[in-house]
Amino acid sequence: MTSIPILKLDDVLLLSIQVDLSDQTALAMQDALAERITATGARGVVIDITALEIVDSFIGRILATTASVSRLLDADTVVVGMRPAVAITLVELGLSLGEVRTALNLEKGLALLRRAWADGAGDSPSIAPSLRAPESR
Amino acid sequence: MTSIPILKLDDVLLLSIQVDLSDQTALAMQDALAERITATGARGVVIDITALEIVDSFIGRILATTASVSRLLDADTVVVGMRPAVAITLVELGLSLGEVRTALNLEKGLALLRRAWADGAGDSPSIAPSLRAPESR
Repeated sequence: MTSIPILKLDDVLLLSIQVDLSDQTALAMQDALAERITATGARGVVIDITALEIVDSFIGRILATTASVSRLLDADTVVVGMRPAVAITLVELGLSLGEVRTALNLEKGLALLRRAWADGAGDSPSIAPSLRAPESR
Repeated sequence: MTSIPILKLDDVLLLSIQVDLSDQTALAMQDALAERITATGARGVVIDITALEIVDSFIGRILATTASVSRLLDADTVVVGMRPAVAITLVELGLSLGEVRTALNLEKGLALLRRAWADGAGDSPSIAPSLRAPESR
């Protein structure tokens, strides 16, 4: 079975998806990633999809669930390297990546993570408690 | 045809080989890498082979020539993520990776590059001109 290597770079784990994801490969990837996050205490995950020429609803769902799992383990996920054609297709098909954040490339993805951490707001700066408007009664 | 994505991280290009290298894929990889080095002015190349369960003489030669090409373009190459079994097999078979340097993982590979650059000695500190013994007549 093909496995996707997980590289560690400081407190970020880096995955580069180059193979066709099957159900089995995707599950193995999520398992391995969850293991590595807990083992290393990584705070961020960058998933590179430069090699993917097609992102369909199946892959979109995998990316979204991977990000959700990582979030539960206290790691933020950014998907980088999406091809223009992929972005267009996703929008045209009305597919969503859930709450997965994206960045143009690895460098911008890392910068996005570091900025979010510097803001001290974790996953979603825009909905961080400190930034919420005070509730009106 | 499968292509291997090249990620940029500051002045280092990062390749993760996950697919079986054919002649064609290998040539395409070398072409793309050479293009990216000249386009970005990268000073280092890190090739991750975590996913490779077998490194035979063919792959060894590809790694060696890739490193030589990069060297001509003024970029140092480090191969990271070699599995213990691969290392053992390489030695047992008497295969050599040429002058390719290796490091345990991505972080150590990057550290190796930065250390070499800090020494200001480029690819091979031990044979850098400034360190050579003065020629005797």
